[in-house]
Amino acid sequence: MNPGRSILVYYHIPEYVDRYRRLIVEERPDLEILPCMNREEIEKVIDRIDILFSGSSFPVEILAKARRLRWIQSMSAGVENFMRGRDALKDVVLTKPQGIFGPIMAEYVSGYILSLTQKMRRVHAQQKEHAWRPFVVESVRDKTVGVMGLGSVGSVIADLISRLGAAVVGFDEQPPHLPFMKREYGPGELDDFLKVCDFVVLTLPLTEKTAGLLSARRFTVMKKNAVVINVSRGGLIRTRDLIDALETGRIAGAVLDVFEEEPLPSDHALWAREDVVLTPHVSGPSLPEDLTAVFLDNLTRWESGSRLQGIVDWDKGY
Amino acid sequence: MNPGRSILVYYHIPEYVDRYRRLIVEERPDLEILPCMNREEIEKVIDRIDILFSGSSFPVEILAKARRLRWIQSMSAGVENFMRGRDALKDVVLTKPQGIFGPIMAEYVSGYILSLTQKMRRVHAQQKEHAWRPFVVESVRDKTVGVMGLGSVGSVIADLISRLGAAVVGFDEQPPHLPFMKREYGPGELDDFLKVCDFVVLTLPLTEKTAGLLSARRFTVMKKNAVVINVSRGGLIRTRDLIDALETGRIAGAVLDVFEEEPLPSDHALWAREDVVLTPHVSGPSLPEDLTAVFLDNLTRWESGSRLQGIVDWDKGY
Repeated sequence: MNPGRSILVYYHIPEYVDRYRRLIVEERPDLEILPCMNREEIEKVIDRIDILFSGSSFPVEILAKARRLRWIQSMSAGVENFMRGRDALKDVVLTKPQGIFGPIMAEYVSGYILSLTQKMRRVHAQQKEHAWRPFVVESVRDKTVGVMGLGSVGSVIADLISRLGAAVVGFDEQPPHLPFMKREYGPGELDDFLKVCDFVVLTLPLTEKTAGLLSARRFTVMKKNAVVINVSRGGLIRTRDLIDALETGRIAGAVLDVFEEEPLPSDHALWAREDVVLTPHVSGPSLPEDLTAVFLDNLTRWESGSRLQGIVDWDKGY
Repeated sequence: MNPGRSILVYYHIPEYVDRYRRLIVEERPDLEILPCMNREEIEKVIDRIDILFSGSSFPVEILAKARRLRWIQSMSAGVENFMRGRDALKDVVLTKPQGIFGPIMAEYVSGYILSLTQKMRRVHAQQKEHAWRPFVVESVRDKTVGVMGLGSVGSVIADLISRLGAAVVGFDEQPPHLPFMKREYGPGELDDFLKVCDFVVLTLPLTEKTAGLLSARRFTVMKKNAVVINVSRGGLIRTRDLIDALETGRIAGAVLDVFEEEPLPSDHALWAREDVVLTPHVSGPSLPEDLTAVFLDNLTRWESGSRLQGIVDWDKGY
């Protein structure tokens, strides 16, 4: 085998690992593919891999033994797990997929915003009672939706929400000046941003700077009718503070796809709340077909010495 | 009082009648406004009214006595109730509001399509059980949405759905050639249209030609995964045939905002179906503010002898 050609493919679900293997081999029968789905399998091959193509639950501490590793392609847009191993990995290129989660996550966010303006929970409750009780729906055209984080996912979400007719504002450390935004808020303007939002959509990466960003004080700034929608990482929100804010009516609700602990324990206080919608980390499904295409495209770049797509900055953490 | 200035304002809810009266008087204190909310009140003034501004439940048989009546402005986009009195009304101009229901009904249709692709019923059920069971969401970008009736409401719905990324097809007796449609089907092509749709959205007017249009045979043409969404009038669908089609798995579901009988009786078989979402005729809320603006605009046209907006063809029935 040539250097640069032994590839560890890691995912925690057996069917998926095998699907990834087949998809890669179909296009590139010349490569050595090492499919792994647990620590034991990884340990056996770690010292000879050149490339790692991996889901977000990889046991990063093992990477200290990966002396030939030069490139990690993450299957997830969130790379905070690999960041934990950054001291040993500074010479390794880390890339994340871009452009494939945005459109489907934008459907999740649009759908749940409309489920709230259309009062669908009430609809289902009334149907159960066989009760004909008309009510007045709200329009998203009367709402201001704030997107926190205007990267490849956030900007696509903001675009679709603006097509629905809502006013869309954004918060980002480096505002990208997207044409469909009513306003973008930059560093130091988070409170000003939160003040105007009826919906606050979290798409920020989880880093040391963003961990616990939505804490008790931030909830006091928000509108009383505000609903928080988190499709990024649970760690962006202090869950205890969120529950307090809901209990005391400082904000109106939350739609959560991600949690500080996943799976969310069945005795967690969030489950029973009527003002919270919980989904089991399903907003950004990653099809092996899509992710393999991203990986193979980057592999071609790697082999030809071109710059890879989606390079993560080890210092910034995203 | 001048001829052409006595206006009967009818609505079946007292608060609304009064709100209409105030909104009109505010702008036009010169007019004689006769607010009515039942047959007795109507009977007292019917022989001297020039104009009728009315909700869809007006007792049309009384109109035979309205010897001075020249113009009816309907508050509803559906005018099938007034059509029942057409023999006595051929010399009266009937107008319906245009352009005000489309945007909010498009939100209803988009919201319920996304609620199905995002499997929200499952989400709510799992939350009740505190059960973390991931599943794969679907994308509207993989769906074909068919809009039956491309008038002022249907075309706005089709436009918004196309912005969500779905392929949108339409059926209309006179295809309007809208730029965002993948294809428009015309007379004689209803089956071809139904064959390709994952969602069938009904926005057609209820007329003699469209009554019971979706009957047993049409359901056999549709895709097994098809979901019917009706935001127009219950009479477009033979409800018994719809239930049969659902029972036998010929189609997958329905989202119904309108019914042959409203309120839907509490013992009706539709209520208990898991494959049906029922809403109590709320998809196109009519704000007195919006409808009064339509009426006052048409009144100005009436007084200056200009052509009114939204004139209904008594022969076509819409």
